[in-house]
Amino acid sequence: MTETNRVFTLAQRPTGKPDDETFELIEETTPTPGDGEVLLRTLYLSVDPYMRGRMSAAESYAEPWAVGEPLRGGVVAEVVESNSDELAAGDIVTGELQWAEYAVADPAELRQIDPKQAPISTALGVLGMTGITAYFGTREVAEPEEGETFVVTGAGGAVGSVAGQIAKIDGARVVGFAGSDEKVEFIEDELGFDVGINYKETDDYEAALAEAAPDGVDAYFDNVGGPITDAVFTQLNVHARVAVCGQISLYNATEQPVGPRKLPTLITKRARVEGFLVSDFQPRWGEAIEQLAGWLDDGSLQYRETVTEGLENAPDAFLGLFEGANLGKQLVKVGEPERRE
Amino acid sequence: MTETNRVFTLAQRPTGKPDDETFELIEETTPTPGDGEVLLRTLYLSVDPYMRGRMSAAESYAEPWAVGEPLRGGVVAEVVESNSDELAAGDIVTGELQWAEYAVADPAELRQIDPKQAPISTALGVLGMTGITAYFGTREVAEPEEGETFVVTGAGGAVGSVAGQIAKIDGARVVGFAGSDEKVEFIEDELGFDVGINYKETDDYEAALAEAAPDGVDAYFDNVGGPITDAVFTQLNVHARVAVCGQISLYNATEQPVGPRKLPTLITKRARVEGFLVSDFQPRWGEAIEQLAGWLDDGSLQYRETVTEGLENAPDAFLGLFEGANLGKQLVKVGEPERRE
Repeated sequence: MTETNRVFTLAQRPTGKPDDETFELIEETTPTPGDGEVLLRTLYLSVDPYMRGRMSAAESYAEPWAVGEPLRGGVVAEVVESNSDELAAGDIVTGELQWAEYAVADPAELRQIDPKQAPISTALGVLGMTGITAYFGTREVAEPEEGETFVVTGAGGAVGSVAGQIAKIDGARVVGFAGSDEKVEFIEDELGFDVGINYKETDDYEAALAEAAPDGVDAYFDNVGGPITDAVFTQLNVHARVAVCGQISLYNATEQPVGPRKLPTLITKRARVEGFLVSDFQPRWGEAIEQLAGWLDDGSLQYRETVTEGLENAPDAFLGLFEGANLGKQLVKVGEPERRE
Repeated sequence: MTETNRVFTLAQRPTGKPDDETFELIEETTPTPGDGEVLLRTLYLSVDPYMRGRMSAAESYAEPWAVGEPLRGGVVAEVVESNSDELAAGDIVTGELQWAEYAVADPAELRQIDPKQAPISTALGVLGMTGITAYFGTREVAEPEEGETFVVTGAGGAVGSVAGQIAKIDGARVVGFAGSDEKVEFIEDELGFDVGINYKETDDYEAALAEAAPDGVDAYFDNVGGPITDAVFTQLNVHARVAVCGQISLYNATEQPVGPRKLPTLITKRARVEGFLVSDFQPRWGEAIEQLAGWLDDGSLQYRETVTEGLENAPDAFLGLFEGANLGKQLVKVGEPERRE
């Protein structure tokens, strides 16, 4: 197979907000799978806020991307050519691959997905990294209990929308901060959150939260950080738990962000604040996927996807995350499966 | 018994740092014990940073002290008159009582202490609230393990000096921040800390810590907060634990303190930050006292006390805490026991 492959590389490290100069779409010859390898055609590419960290040179939990090298991310792909006994042409797989139309991979890096279980795109969202993040962050870190109040930021996004629903399943009162009336309507009417707050239309986060959560906050799942989080900290209850999943409002900062010091509150409230990464729970991902799939099946879990068409539009899809352009999981649709079961 | 009692009351709520106007020493008739009660003569009074919180009207974990009412604190006292079968004149007890020379109490509010076990003043320090705070904060919150690096602020103080020694007992490398060369010498030479840093003589906390803790910080016991804590957060290791015990550098602030936002670091490092109060461990205080007393007996735990003479000097002793005037536990000696076993 000699076809042209298109691949996004990191053109230069962004200062502050990434822009078109950050990305370069290059053309190369489609790679050839070696012994035991497969050639994959990308169907969906996931863009996620954590990728901003990989664009910076600063040490983080993931190795920084190298300038001039391909960007990487969660992908759902179809096997188009297989030199492996483990996978056959037409199989659908997911893995951490390049932002590209084609890729060669070792089956050991991939997980096969069953298109009959759920739409294949869910392997990047509600049944993938973002859903699993919501699952462990809620169940293992924020730990909302029956009758408690659970607050989540980025509530209309891929992680927050699932986290809030899990907290509802676990019997909590759920309040979500989101960035548009459409999102508030979505989380209240479709997902069953008790209250949604459109923070872009709210001057006083503390007052809005006090009204939405009159008994205070027992568990807080934070995807956003900044002033909303400051407001939530003022209303933590004794023995509150804060799961720090993301801080998207700070990722493009060019100077060290400052804010009110929170440690005194932690003493007064004997509160626990814990950062987590879904990768730390990798041995238990199967458990999470099984539970999430069960909730999808029985209708207790809803999900939404925002799909941008075309690999060439992946940078825009990524940049939209910082504007809250997405409702639910942001995906890039790169291709259609050729074979269908 | 009709004698004059002297009692400190809260004259007015302080703005910022308390001063002489905060306190009033009044004279009253010594109270008379009722049925089942005892009359106590104060021997030692404990002054502690947390008392600053009780002087403010703002809600905190302890009820604010009322203006015009007696101040309260940990006391070691001698029973001088008993209407109870549980205690006899000459018994030594500890409890939460007034800043006063005499007090009436119900034996149920008191814990009898054995003067043969250790000097009676230790019931307010290494075998009392501050030692127990160090014990649970270290063992249950910061959880230093063999070979890890443990950092403590206020290392020359009542809590920090004990916390660091427990971390040494548990096999950690221990670094302490303290406010004088005398304290650094004390923690290094007498307590066996690996490194003491005199923060008052250090311009660059991050650099000093990087040198003292070249493998990063796994467990942090914070009594102080502010810029030293900011520096420690820059050097947390993956899965670090931070026990937030006190934030003395912030207690006299008149405006909301601000500082670098720390939640992004918590994600990167999957770190846990937890505030705690010794009172939450009350059912397990006996376990802590037994263990601490065992370490005192076998010489693996050292302690120091700074004793101010005279009830009238209690405000100065308290205010000295904010200047770091004390080495080890700050006490006020109010009287001598009349009866000795």
